[in-house]
Amino acid sequence: MIILGVDPGYATIGYGLIDKTGSRLTLIDYGVVTTPPDENIAVRLAMIDRAMAAIIQKHKPEEVAVEELFFNTNITTALKVAQARGVILLCAVKECGRLYEYTPLMIKQALTGNGRADKRQIQYMVKMLLDMKAEPKPDDAADALAAAICHANTLRVQQRII
Amino acid sequence: MIILGVDPGYATIGYGLIDKTGSRLTLIDYGVVTTPPDENIAVRLAMIDRAMAAIIQKHKPEEVAVEELFFNTNITTALKVAQARGVILLCAVKECGRLYEYTPLMIKQALTGNGRADKRQIQYMVKMLLDMKAEPKPDDAADALAAAICHANTLRVQQRII
Repeated sequence: MIILGVDPGYATIGYGLIDKTGSRLTLIDYGVVTTPPDENIAVRLAMIDRAMAAIIQKHKPEEVAVEELFFNTNITTALKVAQARGVILLCAVKECGRLYEYTPLMIKQALTGNGRADKRQIQYMVKMLLDMKAEPKPDDAADALAAAICHANTLRVQQRII
Repeated sequence: MIILGVDPGYATIGYGLIDKTGSRLTLIDYGVVTTPPDENIAVRLAMIDRAMAAIIQKHKPEEVAVEELFFNTNITTALKVAQARGVILLCAVKECGRLYEYTPLMIKQALTGNGRADKRQIQYMVKMLLDMKAEPKPDDAADALAAAICHANTLRVQQRII
C-alpha cells in the first residue's frame, strides 16, 4: 500500500511517499513543493493545488496522512498555512479519497516513543526506518515522511485490534 | 459587471451577487452555503468547493471580492475558517480568475464611512444601497453583499484616478 505523507505549508510543503508491504516500509519519493513569496495568495494556492494533484496522480497513493497544524505564536503565518492546508486537504480528498490527520505529537510519539522529540531525532528515525543512506532534507520533507510512517504504524496497531 | 462577494466560513459561508452598471448597483442573488457539523473536515471542504463552483458557474461573476479573516480570540475556529477560506480562494481563482480581498474595516468604511460600524448599520446600508425591501439575512449573507458593494465602490474610485 502506498502512503503519502504531507507537511502542510504556504511557502514550502513537504511530501513523502512510502510503500508498506506487510510490516516492511520502503521509501518511494520525497521532496518539497515551494511557492514564490512575491506571488499573490491565489496564485500560490493554485500552484500548491496543481503540484499536489500531480504528485498524487503520479504515485497513486491509497492513503494520505496530513500533519495537523501546530499553532505557533505568529497568527498571521498560522492563518496563511491554514489556508494552504485547506487546499491540500481538498486536493487529497478529490484525488485520493482516504485521508488521515495526525498531530505533531502523535507523529513524534509514533517515530521515537517521545512526543517531545526534536527534529534531529525525527530525521534520524526516518533514515533508520526507511533504510536511507542519509537523513532526508529539508525538514519539511522529513516531517512528511514521518507523517507517512506514523500512519503506517498506526494502521498496523488498528489491524491488531481487529 | 457582475460581482460576487464572499464572507468566508467553515460552517456557514455567505455569498452575494450584485450587478454594477455605471454607478447603479442591482441585487442578483444572495444566501449562505452551510456544511454539517457532524461531517469531517475533508468532506466539508469538498462541499464548500462544489457549492462555490456551482454559484460561480451559474452567475458567471467577472470579479470576486472575498473578506479577509478577522482574527478573533478562538484560534481553533480561526484556523478552521482559514482552511475553508483557502478552498474558497482556490475555487474563485480557478472558476473566475479575478479576485480581490478586503478587510472587514475597509468594507465597513466603504459602506458606512465608519470602520467600526456594527452589523445592524451594515445590514441597513446594504438594504439601502441595493434597494431591498428588507435587510438581508443571515449576517453572513449581508456581509457578503457588503464585500461586493465595497468592491464596486473601490473600483469606481480606481477608475476616477485613471
